Amino acid sequence: GAQRRTFMRGVPAWNNLTSKRTDEEISVGTEGPHNLDRVSSTPVQLGQTDSKLPDEIKGDWVLFHPVYSPAELHSVEVLHRESKTMSDKIAFLFVRLLRWGFDVASGYKHKPLPPNADKMSIEELRKGGYIMDEHQWLRRFLFLESIAGVPGFVAATLRHLKSLRLLRRDAGWIHTLLEEAENERMHLMTFMSLRKPGWFFRAMILGAQGVFYNAFFLSYLISPPTCHRFVGHLEEEAVITYTRCIGEIEAGRLPAWSNYPAPEIAKDYWRMEKNATLLDVIYAVRSDESTHRFVNHSLANLKKDDINPFAFREPDMTVKGKKSGFEREEAEQYVIESQKLLKEHRAQQQK
Amino acid sequence: GAQRRTFMRGVPAWNNLTSKRTDEEISVGTEGPHNLDRVSSTPVQLGQTDSKLPDEIKGDWVLFHPVYSPAELHSVEVLHRESKTMSDKIAFLFVRLLRWGFDVASGYKHKPLPPNADKMSIEELRKGGYIMDEHQWLRRFLFLESIAGVPGFVAATLRHLKSLRLLRRDAGWIHTLLEEAENERMHLMTFMSLRKPGWFFRAMILGAQGVFYNAFFLSYLISPPTCHRFVGHLEEEAVITYTRCIGEIEAGRLPAWSNYPAPEIAKDYWRMEKNATLLDVIYAVRSDESTHRFVNHSLANLKKDDINPFAFREPDMTVKGKKSGFEREEAEQYVIESQKLLKEHRAQQQK
Ligand SMILES: [Fe+2]
Ligand SMILES: [Fe+2]
Ligand SMILES: [Fe+2]
Ligand SMILES: [Fe+2]
Repeated sequence: GAQRRTFMRGVPAWNNLTSKRTDEEISVGTEGPHNLDRVSSTPVQLGQTDSKLPDEIKGDWVLFHPVYSPAELHSVEVLHRESKTMSDKIAFLFVRLLRWGFDVASGYKHKPLPPNADKMSIEELRKGGYIMDEHQWLRRFLFLESIAGVPGFVAATLRHLKSLRLLRRDAGWIHTLLEEAENERMHLMTFMSLRKPGWFFRAMILGAQGVFYNAFFLSYLISPPTCHRFVGHLEEEAVITYTRCIGEIEAGRLPAWSNYPAPEIAKDYWRMEKNATLLDVIYAVRSDESTHRFVNHSLANLKKDDINPFAFREPDMTVKGKKSGFEREEAEQYVIESQKLLKEHRAQQQK
Repeated sequence: GAQRRTFMRGVPAWNNLTSKRTDEEISVGTEGPHNLDRVSSTPVQLGQTDSKLPDEIKGDWVLFHPVYSPAELHSVEVLHRESKTMSDKIAFLFVRLLRWGFDVASGYKHKPLPPNADKMSIEELRKGGYIMDEHQWLRRFLFLESIAGVPGFVAATLRHLKSLRLLRRDAGWIHTLLEEAENERMHLMTFMSLRKPGWFFRAMILGAQGVFYNAFFLSYLISPPTCHRFVGHLEEEAVITYTRCIGEIEAGRLPAWSNYPAPEIAKDYWRMEKNATLLDVIYAVRSDESTHRFVNHSLANLKKDDINPFAFREPDMTVKGKKSGFEREEAEQYVIESQKLLKEHRAQQQK
């Protein structure tokens, strides 16, 4: 960890500038500010209208801070958006390819349980290759999240550079893309605190990033909508993975995680109760993934100069959990709503 | 602009998803959310302590939203940090090289005024190469800002990727680096709204980005502190440029800008009065530059695993305008202060 290395450099072992280990009790703000530390904790209501769309603006931690209600956490569904165009098909093909690589690399198993599963012990199910153990799940999460943090940042970079070099407005995309990347990184930081992986696994992650960062960078230069579609499908897979893991924990097939306490960093990030469990964390992560699914499938339906409909607000999980994304017309409607709400909010402020 | 291109594609000329031109009256949130649109506009006081350090947390627009008091705007001084190490010297050498290239490319002139300057007309001074006209200043600003938006984003990218691939915390740097990049981009968007440059200038910007993005990416891989030092010195130059321009406007030597109204985007970004002028904007930009100067010289004094002292709060302009940066010990002291303030703030919230 950071501390040991600092020590080896001959600096006193404890220094207030040295970052903490992830499994340590969080000293507030080690990873950056949380909006709840900055602003009044009552969320602003952007005016009261007849709109049935949720109008509460969520705060953010670092960049994005999702705090979910129990209803939201449970309203996420496994979805698959059917490909319509050629670009959709290419994007999905790449996801299947990557998924296959993932499964091999992380030793993912998802055989249907045998008819006599009830009578088999967890040990027997594991030996039969029917279910994965905690270690295997974690390895999958870590691999998944270390890759998942790349696309949002790459897309944000390319839109930022484009805005600079073509002297053109960005139309609000960058922030949402960075929020996604930051959110994925926080997933990784959370799971990382459960286990320090060995050198072989680390080398694999390192290599995967080298390939994926460059491949995604080039692909995004060629076709941003295809890339967002790709991420949309990738997030569908992430929702499946976490949904299955939740099922396993709730069925008691991951006993070591049955009442495992939530990592400190996760409690701070999602503002969870003191006695939150790892299961609560995985529910929250799944909700985040369903946001990414919704946002990316929606962005893939837009033209590159369109305004980002999520620059101001996002539908809540009861929408994002049950719908693949906005079509372009829905996005436009949503932007009109947002601007109306915001205008009312400003008018109120000026009173 | 975006609208014309949209029209050419056969889409109706007006579409609510189409981004606005920069010189158009701002429809709120075209470029993203402003914290003032989200949260109560009273800044949170992070507890009341004996600390003499300013403890007001500023809001943000898009990512970073500086709102300056008149005192802050006028407390920015031209500073130069003396090189101490070899790395410092290399960084400064590169800035001088870049500055020289800049001056040539943007036709910058800064001859001392002749003794009889009082009796010469502006026309005569311009012809004699003593002063630049509005057009020349603007060209310099645009070039400067189009480059200035690169380093923060590159540094943020590399820290983000490193955190993902080494499974390690970032310690709060990313957010500050992105704020800088976003802030520079907003400078560009502001100045861009004053003039649409021609194809030759655009080609130059395009080429410069291609070279500079890659060069800075590689350099940051090699030595982050040298790169932050480089940016620190670059920002010293930016403060000089804007200070001189302010002097020119106030001396009446840029008559077309004497009472030129502030661009709409700038009024929204810095939350300025309706009747704000371009001069007010340039004061605000200069203050931003002095923040970048302070932040980068400070980060250059830290070790790469140190906590970012500006993750939670930054000293206000009366500090940042008059000091090159924090030494490592000062940064540590500042982090201790911040954590204390934050703890008190949390304790208060829980009451
Ligand atoms: Fe994730
Ligand atoms: Fe995701
Ligand atoms: Fe700037
Ligand atoms: Fe700057």
